[in-house]
Amino acid sequence: MDAAKAAELLDRMCRRRPLIQNITNYVSMDIAANVLLAAGASPAMVHAAEEAGDFVALADSLVVNIGTLSPAWVEGMRVAADRASALGKPWVLDPVGVGATRLRDVAAADLLGRRPSVVRGNASEILSLAQGFGTPHGVDSAHDSADAVDAARRLAAHSGAVVAVTGRVDYVTDGTRLVAVEGGSPLMTLVTAVGCSVSALVAAFLPVAEDPLEGSAAALAFAAVTGESAAAGEPGPGTFRVRWIDALHALGPDDLGTRARIRRLPDLV
Amino acid sequence: MDAAKAAELLDRMCRRRPLIQNITNYVSMDIAANVLLAAGASPAMVHAAEEAGDFVALADSLVVNIGTLSPAWVEGMRVAADRASALGKPWVLDPVGVGATRLRDVAAADLLGRRPSVVRGNASEILSLAQGFGTPHGVDSAHDSADAVDAARRLAAHSGAVVAVTGRVDYVTDGTRLVAVEGGSPLMTLVTAVGCSVSALVAAFLPVAEDPLEGSAAALAFAAVTGESAAAGEPGPGTFRVRWIDALHALGPDDLGTRARIRRLPDLV
Amino acid sequence: MDAAKAAELLDRMCRRRPLIQNITNYVSMDIAANVLLAAGASPAMVHAAEEAGDFVALADSLVVNIGTLSPAWVEGMRVAADRASALGKPWVLDPVGVGATRLRDVAAADLLGRRPSVVRGNASEILSLAQGFGTPHGVDSAHDSADAVDAARRLAAHSGAVVAVTGRVDYVTDGTRLVAVEGGSPLMTLVTAVGCSVSALVAAFLPVAEDPLEGSAAALAFAAVTGESAAAGEPGPGTFRVRWIDALHALGPDDLGTRARIRRLPDLV
Repeated sequence: MDAAKAAELLDRMCRRRPLIQNITNYVSMDIAANVLLAAGASPAMVHAAEEAGDFVALADSLVVNIGTLSPAWVEGMRVAADRASALGKPWVLDPVGVGATRLRDVAAADLLGRRPSVVRGNASEILSLAQGFGTPHGVDSAHDSADAVDAARRLAAHSGAVVAVTGRVDYVTDGTRLVAVEGGSPLMTLVTAVGCSVSALVAAFLPVAEDPLEGSAAALAFAAVTGESAAAGEPGPGTFRVRWIDALHALGPDDLGTRARIRRLPDLV
Repeated sequence: MDAAKAAELLDRMCRRRPLIQNITNYVSMDIAANVLLAAGASPAMVHAAEEAGDFVALADSLVVNIGTLSPAWVEGMRVAADRASALGKPWVLDPVGVGATRLRDVAAADLLGRRPSVVRGNASEILSLAQGFGTPHGVDSAHDSADAVDAARRLAAHSGAVVAVTGRVDYVTDGTRLVAVEGGSPLMTLVTAVGCSVSALVAAFLPVAEDPLEGSAAALAFAAVTGESAAAGEPGPGTFRVRWIDALHALGPDDLGTRARIRRLPDLV
Repeated sequence: MDAAKAAELLDRMCRRRPLIQNITNYVSMDIAANVLLAAGASPAMVHAAEEAGDFVALADSLVVNIGTLSPAWVEGMRVAADRASALGKPWVLDPVGVGATRLRDVAAADLLGRRPSVVRGNASEILSLAQGFGTPHGVDSAHDSADAVDAARRLAAHSGAVVAVTGRVDYVTDGTRLVAVEGGSPLMTLVTAVGCSVSALVAAFLPVAEDPLEGSAAALAFAAVTGESAAAGEPGPGTFRVRWIDALHALGPDDLGTRARIRRLPDLV
């Protein structure tokens, strides 16, 4: 996995214009849809249990994000996840805030059992999610992504999903292979739902990638490089958000190939 | 219907500052409310069946948009639509994604029967909705708006609503008269919920228009001309969105009268 | 209460980075979260009755905003409000649109009885809410904030909450003391959910203020001064919104201490 592969996948994604079904939180609806449109994909927000499964049949991939949870939405998430798995369509689980409440813990564990292709979270979320599969950890605060690499490995090994831990450096693993993606900007933590939008970008790359580890790494590199472009001149967070959307639209495969910083690290054991 | 009439209606709308009730999807809440405020109207998002009908009594018009549907919301839509029809208040149906799932098809057909003043959709949506009233069509993708003019005519004739098909050129018909509105920018397709916001603008013009066909055409021309202003210099989609809101606030009736491109076409038969 | 105190509270808030739980309307989710992040707080949107109370235990304060109401959300609001009161955590009630429908009136009265620390609303909302506690008023339209000072006094005296009426001039009272905050920009009324975001800012200041009247006044002054910064050059409402977020991030305690216009007025009787 390298920058050239990321460029190839971006090119394929833009040509295919995949339809991405989002079951996501209320906060991220606007930015995630705009990020997908700017990047070249086609977003659809379809969440109710009464139609979520039907729509999966039309979509190229699915994101399930538990940011603003309620029981009715969990039911729609289950229906959509099961349909995606049954149809062999890729789907991404974004376990926002797992570890904070029992409702989130139960929903995330349930969804994890429905075989997501990729789980993307921050270090605290991945540590929480992995807790059931090995060493426990204390109440999480602001963990560094590097602290969660072992948790990601365990989570990947037990769930069968590729796990992406995002932070200052992003790490992606399938339980054995490990890839680091560098770049981005601290401004990305000052705009709400950037992480949710990155999960949506991962879902956009999966339909054109043979390997979900490569698709995830390409999406993370695309987010990081465009974040750097938008952060040039250190704007405020309002301006940064506008420029990030612009950058996602402007950045072509060649630029991504030149600027992406993706490194294969030694395999995990 | 011409540019001078559009200018007159914009002037009336800004003076009256109509209160527009929106039952709309989660993705469009932010942009639709901001579009209405910038344009000179007063938005209110009130959706629950327990209060939607009460609020219609206070509002000048209503939008019902099925973008992110669930059974509880459909109930609120029904209550509000019935109250608007009973009180003789204009209301707009935006059948987002009709044709994609059974939930949408059933909801859209049900709402269409409650006598909307205007139905606004893209070509695929209007073709889907008209399907029950004439020739069927295949799975839709990226139809051109001109392809849906006959479907719009049939839909208008059978439902009693004015039908607006938006696209590269917008077409509005009451089943007999046909008006084309030109302008806009391809950037409008790269920002989420622009179509939903245009439906909200139609609802803002209806309370000041004697004729829903004229009110719809004026709103579409206002959206098109402001879209052109915002697209000057070909900004990215993030910047375009910000500038569109600015342009909706800045454009006065005189500018609209000068720049709107509205043409009456031969009557349909 | 003066500008120096506001500066001190802003400094404390940024150092502590409080976690603010928002049960708020769909329209304000994006902007309120971005306003809190830009200001230096940490937002979380957690609304369902099944987890809202659990999350209060983790949060530093809570906002309950009834902008887009439904029965299930009211239940989550009750659970969270009761938990906050039981744990002695500050919480803010934003009674959006109270007076418009019975659902809103009943919900607002119920929540008011659960002992909010602060109630923030516009003049019409405060007049509506106070109606049960003294002289009635007619159907409200565009009341000036000064018209609601007596209603705010009565509401504060009967509910035990600090009441903030925002408008051209903001007034804050605990039933006896009265503080006026001047500044801001008319552009703040042309962007949706600015009022909701101000309520969220009040919630961000409460955890670092010994006195909710001082915390509220500091938050209102912070919003007003940053609003003035963003309005420089009279941009359109789209650009204003972006710049306001930038300004909330850029404005430091020293600037606030220099520019805030807070006046203690004679006590109310």
